[in-house]
Amino acid sequence: MEDVNFPQRLVHVDLKGAPPRMNYYEQIFPIIASMGATGLLVEYEDMFPYHGRFSHLRAPHAYSSEDIAALHTLAATYNLSIIPLIQTFGHFEFILKHDEHRPIREIEHYPNALCPTHPDSFPLVTKLITQVLELHTSDKFLHIGADEVWHIGKCPRCQDYMEDKKMSISEFFLAWMFKVAWWVKKQHPHLTIIMWDDMMRNVTADVLKSSGIGELVEPMVWQYQTANFDLPSDIFSRYSSIFKGLWTASAFKGATGSTQFLPPIQHHINNQLTWKRVLSENKGEIKNFRGIALTGWQRYDHYAVLCELLPVALPSLCLCLRVLTQGSFTESDHDYVSQALGFPHRINVLPFPRPQVVEQGANFPGHKVYVGVQMWSNFVCKYQAISNSEGMLGWFSDYLRSRNFTNPVQVENIMSQVNEVAENLSELRTHLIPWLLEVVYEDTVEEWVGSFIDPLLKKLTSVIEECKTQIMIGGRVRDYKKSDY
Amino acid sequence: MEDVNFPQRLVHVDLKGAPPRMNYYEQIFPIIASMGATGLLVEYEDMFPYHGRFSHLRAPHAYSSEDIAALHTLAATYNLSIIPLIQTFGHFEFILKHDEHRPIREIEHYPNALCPTHPDSFPLVTKLITQVLELHTSDKFLHIGADEVWHIGKCPRCQDYMEDKKMSISEFFLAWMFKVAWWVKKQHPHLTIIMWDDMMRNVTADVLKSSGIGELVEPMVWQYQTANFDLPSDIFSRYSSIFKGLWTASAFKGATGSTQFLPPIQHHINNQLTWKRVLSENKGEIKNFRGIALTGWQRYDHYAVLCELLPVALPSLCLCLRVLTQGSFTESDHDYVSQALGFPHRINVLPFPRPQVVEQGANFPGHKVYVGVQMWSNFVCKYQAISNSEGMLGWFSDYLRSRNFTNPVQVENIMSQVNEVAENLSELRTHLIPWLLEVVYEDTVEEWVGSFIDPLLKKLTSVIEECKTQIMIGGRVRDYKKSDY
Repeated sequence: MEDVNFPQRLVHVDLKGAPPRMNYYEQIFPIIASMGATGLLVEYEDMFPYHGRFSHLRAPHAYSSEDIAALHTLAATYNLSIIPLIQTFGHFEFILKHDEHRPIREIEHYPNALCPTHPDSFPLVTKLITQVLELHTSDKFLHIGADEVWHIGKCPRCQDYMEDKKMSISEFFLAWMFKVAWWVKKQHPHLTIIMWDDMMRNVTADVLKSSGIGELVEPMVWQYQTANFDLPSDIFSRYSSIFKGLWTASAFKGATGSTQFLPPIQHHINNQLTWKRVLSENKGEIKNFRGIALTGWQRYDHYAVLCELLPVALPSLCLCLRVLTQGSFTESDHDYVSQALGFPHRINVLPFPRPQVVEQGANFPGHKVYVGVQMWSNFVCKYQAISNSEGMLGWFSDYLRSRNFTNPVQVENIMSQVNEVAENLSELRTHLIPWLLEVVYEDTVEEWVGSFIDPLLKKLTSVIEECKTQIMIGGRVRDYKKSDY
Repeated sequence: MEDVNFPQRLVHVDLKGAPPRMNYYEQIFPIIASMGATGLLVEYEDMFPYHGRFSHLRAPHAYSSEDIAALHTLAATYNLSIIPLIQTFGHFEFILKHDEHRPIREIEHYPNALCPTHPDSFPLVTKLITQVLELHTSDKFLHIGADEVWHIGKCPRCQDYMEDKKMSISEFFLAWMFKVAWWVKKQHPHLTIIMWDDMMRNVTADVLKSSGIGELVEPMVWQYQTANFDLPSDIFSRYSSIFKGLWTASAFKGATGSTQFLPPIQHHINNQLTWKRVLSENKGEIKNFRGIALTGWQRYDHYAVLCELLPVALPSLCLCLRVLTQGSFTESDHDYVSQALGFPHRINVLPFPRPQVVEQGANFPGHKVYVGVQMWSNFVCKYQAISNSEGMLGWFSDYLRSRNFTNPVQVENIMSQVNEVAENLSELRTHLIPWLLEVVYEDTVEEWVGSFIDPLLKKLTSVIEECKTQIMIGGRVRDYKKSDY
């Protein structure tokens, strides 16, 4: 098997959730650069400082244009290139959720995909790209997204258009992407345009070729699994016959479940190793391999819950970068990264969430959040164990409580266990909020705590209150209710 | 290994929950007798027709004295003996839950155990035994319970008494049981008294001997596990040196989880086989082996939820009886019992609850409830799968809903899945109620449906309502709330 190198190793910064504060970049850039990152793939979403008639697209804590200039300066210090990413077809939720852009939805009540035949769509997309590129004048690449366009060719106008031109869905997809890429290339001939490949994965070489897309973009093939990649066997030769360059994308977080909160690191390491193997096996087929983007999804889409926060996944990112630079993962690589991040032991690469020892003692930027989320995970496990305990299920059911037919022996036991979790979680909450605020903005803290701590605390408090009531009135006869049967 | 026989094979009828209607006994006695049952161990609890100053102990649907006479006649037809069981120390909840008996609790706020040193305790116990024996004049055995006395020697009076007499907890326990058994034996010298053995399991032969209990009772050693029984290695020789006879107890239901609803039959078969092996291995040590009781717990205690209903466990009971009469479990035994119960296939002995094919087509008494509970189990599995789905967890969290920040694409999908389960469950409910009413009384139907169907239906309905709301108002911008952090 021939060896393969990754000329570029891009770190995907997914800003559609939990965007880092600017000073967190300052802290992590030297680390990721020293681990082998060559650039950043920045998916701004609503964190970009859109202005003028698009200023409503900005999130409350969106970066300013000065922030983006500073990001460039900082990145340059560590020889990190910057590639902006803006969606141009599907996953257009951050735009389509606004009532003023509802008319350009492909399906009126779904905010996912834009309608390519609506007369307002193309002007909107090009104006957004223009605003983004105005703040990336020195950069050489643009990523135009285009993954997972689930709703395409659904509206009557699109259907008429396709019928009229005798177009398949794939041809219709490629026609729009060609139109967007052609415009970019005309305005900015120096730019290399990248797009996700999944909508082209099963499109024949003939269709790809006749679309003309091969002259304009380079595909980025994403695959986050381990061992067996679900990719067509001819994908590398087919793409190489069409496009001038090829990119791949692996994942260091955000790819193993929409509610994952701690990355299963071994999975992500294996994902890199598998990419290494697959690329080596296909090296003869591949023309101009450009490099890999390590994706770090922060939500599965704009409307999803937060998954792993960046500080929590920094060990995973560094280990994955190490794998890509070394081409393997040895104990000495494991030790190297663990020591570089200040761990007093080897980083735990096995998956949570089973109660396990919290990894205290590291000192990388955001390590307090890493520890806090591990503690939180253990408390959640403890509560789940109580919820599924014989005591809770067998002696404290909805029915038994509704009849005040409980035994204080059981209820006292439940209450003391729940109380312990509630107290621990409450205490963690007071620590975790300032820890989070060091790396993310207020609205992210509000969302993380509001998603993962407060509903649980509310539940725990209500169980404790029910326990108190039952201890007072329980241990007596059952309140029989008249049966309706 | 010497072979061992089970002279008596008693079926435990646990009436502390879901007591069968009288006509259900008529239907099942010929079946269990033909499968090898020799008698019934009837744990009446609150189903006994206590009268006079104890009439408040009766459950709403308690059997009448005529019912109990009829039960005897019916049992005699099938050569089934009847052994009544009444608790006399721990698990006294069905008495101690009544305010008028609160003074004789060992611990004032726990309804579990009675206080043996309270002057009212002994008169109460003997009066209850008297009422029970009045309706069992032709029977030759009495079981006086005495398992799991968790609260013993806790009240100041008991502690003073023990200190005064220099008694250990075990001696104190044995002294009370001696007092009760002595009284029974004096009044009814023809009776053989049985008691559970667990409180004596680790008591030395010397202490057992000097208590005098060996002359009065025969222990029943219960163990419901498979493969490795957690019993002291000297138990059989020790008990045989003290007592005149020995009983064992296995389980055909109600022993694998307080919320079990379908018996894991293979587990129960293995439990019988293990008893067979353990008794054979210890045959040389055992003096006068009397037989085995197949326990069928209906609740873990008086305050617990219902576990497997008797009709649902009849296949397990028959298979277990077959194992005890044949001494092994072969495919032909499996076929024999399956055919006898009218199954068109081999009874499924593997555990639920994973969605699996419902066993239609049998015709044993109560088979409709058997089918209904299997259907119910599948619906519960389906709902759990939806609850744990990416869609539900990732796009419909408490937090996202509280911000009306949902995507109709996801929500419509969730709603259609939940709707399907709700409709199926609702329909099952209308069938299951009359099926249940054929075998159990109204209050059991109310409890089963109120415990296992109605809370789930309520939950499903509320999810559907939330889906409707979110489909209407979702797909827009997030309701930001001011952060407090």
